[in-house]
Amino acid sequence: MDAEFYLDNAATTRILPEVLAEALPFLEDGFGNPSSLHGLGVTAGRAVKEARETLARVLGVPPQGVTFTSGGTESDNLALRGVFGSARLKGERLLISAIEHPAVRETARALEAAGVRVARIPVTAGGVVDLARLEALLSPEVRLVSVMAVNNELGTAQPLVEIGRLLRAHAPKAVFHVDAVQAFTRVPLPWREARIDLLSVSAHKVHGPKGVGALVRCSPVPLAPQTLGGGQEDGLRSGTENTFGIVAFAAAARRAAAGHQAQRADRAAYHRAWLETLTEFPRIAVFRSEQATPFIVNFSLRDVPGEVTLHHLEQQGLLVSTGSACSSHAPEPSPVLLAAGLSEAEALSAIRLSFSLHNTPAGLPRVLPAFRRAMAELARL
Amino acid sequence: MDAEFYLDNAATTRILPEVLAEALPFLEDGFGNPSSLHGLGVTAGRAVKEARETLARVLGVPPQGVTFTSGGTESDNLALRGVFGSARLKGERLLISAIEHPAVRETARALEAAGVRVARIPVTAGGVVDLARLEALLSPEVRLVSVMAVNNELGTAQPLVEIGRLLRAHAPKAVFHVDAVQAFTRVPLPWREARIDLLSVSAHKVHGPKGVGALVRCSPVPLAPQTLGGGQEDGLRSGTENTFGIVAFAAAARRAAAGHQAQRADRAAYHRAWLETLTEFPRIAVFRSEQATPFIVNFSLRDVPGEVTLHHLEQQGLLVSTGSACSSHAPEPSPVLLAAGLSEAEALSAIRLSFSLHNTPAGLPRVLPAFRRAMAELARL
Repeated sequence: MDAEFYLDNAATTRILPEVLAEALPFLEDGFGNPSSLHGLGVTAGRAVKEARETLARVLGVPPQGVTFTSGGTESDNLALRGVFGSARLKGERLLISAIEHPAVRETARALEAAGVRVARIPVTAGGVVDLARLEALLSPEVRLVSVMAVNNELGTAQPLVEIGRLLRAHAPKAVFHVDAVQAFTRVPLPWREARIDLLSVSAHKVHGPKGVGALVRCSPVPLAPQTLGGGQEDGLRSGTENTFGIVAFAAAARRAAAGHQAQRADRAAYHRAWLETLTEFPRIAVFRSEQATPFIVNFSLRDVPGEVTLHHLEQQGLLVSTGSACSSHAPEPSPVLLAAGLSEAEALSAIRLSFSLHNTPAGLPRVLPAFRRAMAELARL
Repeated sequence: MDAEFYLDNAATTRILPEVLAEALPFLEDGFGNPSSLHGLGVTAGRAVKEARETLARVLGVPPQGVTFTSGGTESDNLALRGVFGSARLKGERLLISAIEHPAVRETARALEAAGVRVARIPVTAGGVVDLARLEALLSPEVRLVSVMAVNNELGTAQPLVEIGRLLRAHAPKAVFHVDAVQAFTRVPLPWREARIDLLSVSAHKVHGPKGVGALVRCSPVPLAPQTLGGGQEDGLRSGTENTFGIVAFAAAARRAAAGHQAQRADRAAYHRAWLETLTEFPRIAVFRSEQATPFIVNFSLRDVPGEVTLHHLEQQGLLVSTGSACSSHAPEPSPVLLAAGLSEAEALSAIRLSFSLHNTPAGLPRVLPAFRRAMAELARL
């Protein structure tokens, strides 16, 4: 497959060959259990330690703040459940944005069933958390606020610094959790300025393997572990460490951060080229936001179900998504798109293009004509 | 490293090269998200489905019973917490054996703190669950019984069929969970005869990669999911599937089951050779049990801390363990060894040898002399 034609990078990214090469020894000769006392174990343990330091360096946090997990979903679950712990939940308050990933949304729902008072912060028509509405919801009783950094369907960046400022003023004891799965390595994460306490990140969204992620503590928030056993990860997350995955995650994060930094101007140009191309088609409505990031474009082709558009694009070699991959098998319109003000019809026609290091301006002369061919086919229907 | 010299296979095993070759495409061109609707996603989804069927076939259970997790620890946590769910926990009863893995032991402790009445079933001096003591603990109020199939430190097989019979007679509504992490592919798991409901298994103990395991439902036990989000794994365990890990797990399970079957006679001979060799050293006390399996030997060298013996063996190239890998950094004597009747001094001197497909009678002429050399060095101290 031509890597330029893969436009579903918010669902998952291709692992970089250099990342695989760096981590592969831990699937081969370096197979020791990091807890073993012999040399093979010590080597594996050291690799995990170095990976933790690398990931911490990419984020600018202390290494002891990094807890490796099995992925973004587990990180989100650990953040929410970990903060509420086993304390009496009745009357505790949790705020999440109306456009959170299901890992946050569903965990919040479970906490709600257990007695936590959950409120959803509405978003503007630009797909951005409504700060006035947030302010109205804040109070000293709020224990946790969870807002993602970049939305996985809309691509909108959330105003983390402004949210942090409001928390400081109106809910100084609230823990601030940010699902940074889509943002990580792509946009800056100003955790200090935004006074973020917890960050969820995932390897397979940054050209690493599936099955590994991290919950990062930027501040010493007490967390109740959710997976108990041998006491790995400083007791916060038991289970034999996935050494290959952890080493690959750190290698991928390092390379992806550098890569996106180097591609900054190209990415903006690439994104602009897509937006311009989409204006050629009067039946296409593009989701626009002042807080757009150049990694995701969401558009709706009027009166055509998203799945039909997807398959026509695939016939031209272009791989895209209708919504977030997690819920793409669901026939319901995306609650995230509805929350951002799309009509039900628009949401059911939505197509998401999402870009990675492998999508470059150099690929556009092949990719855009393929897109136009698919649109021409669709116009004939 | 000479694979014959690695004797720490209860901590982790080396991935089989054929397994890696079979699964590697899912770290390369087959990187799609199984939830994606395009061809790359469909291919990944089909691979997960086939892996589920393979694993189910190896165990002889229906494929829909297999829920992939991040490993044995998560599987144990999901089994225990999933059965107790969010129901009122006060007064509910849980029985675990006194020699369970920390993943069961610590989760039971957390449930106890939440109001579950937990009892530990004592074991005999042979390291086997005491059936009379179990019978005395059973009652219709017992909701869950968790007993491992093969102990990870002693190697003793537990009387699962007899336990199942007692449950049927005295606690017919109890769910029977078996941590089969060490047993899987090595010894038969008579889940039907033993009326087992839930089985925990792990890939990296059967020559697969770290970071993947499964909880297997042999019967339709209702389970409360512990990781919420996109609804993967039939809603029981959300998070993007670790396609590489899942495919590798199935491939490893298939090959390991066939390999251990083929090695049955060799394994018995190999185990006997070790037991005979150990009798040469009067200061060595070998843990003996009528329920020993030929995969683990546990012995204590009188008056020598386990770590000292471990390092002398390593100087001769032999990699072993002092206890279970998970707790090997703890200076405390193993609670499992104490529960099986070892003195504190014996437990602190304990060494575990654990065998895999890569330890064969052909290796003994190299391995046993190395062991004797280490013992001679130690005798000089």
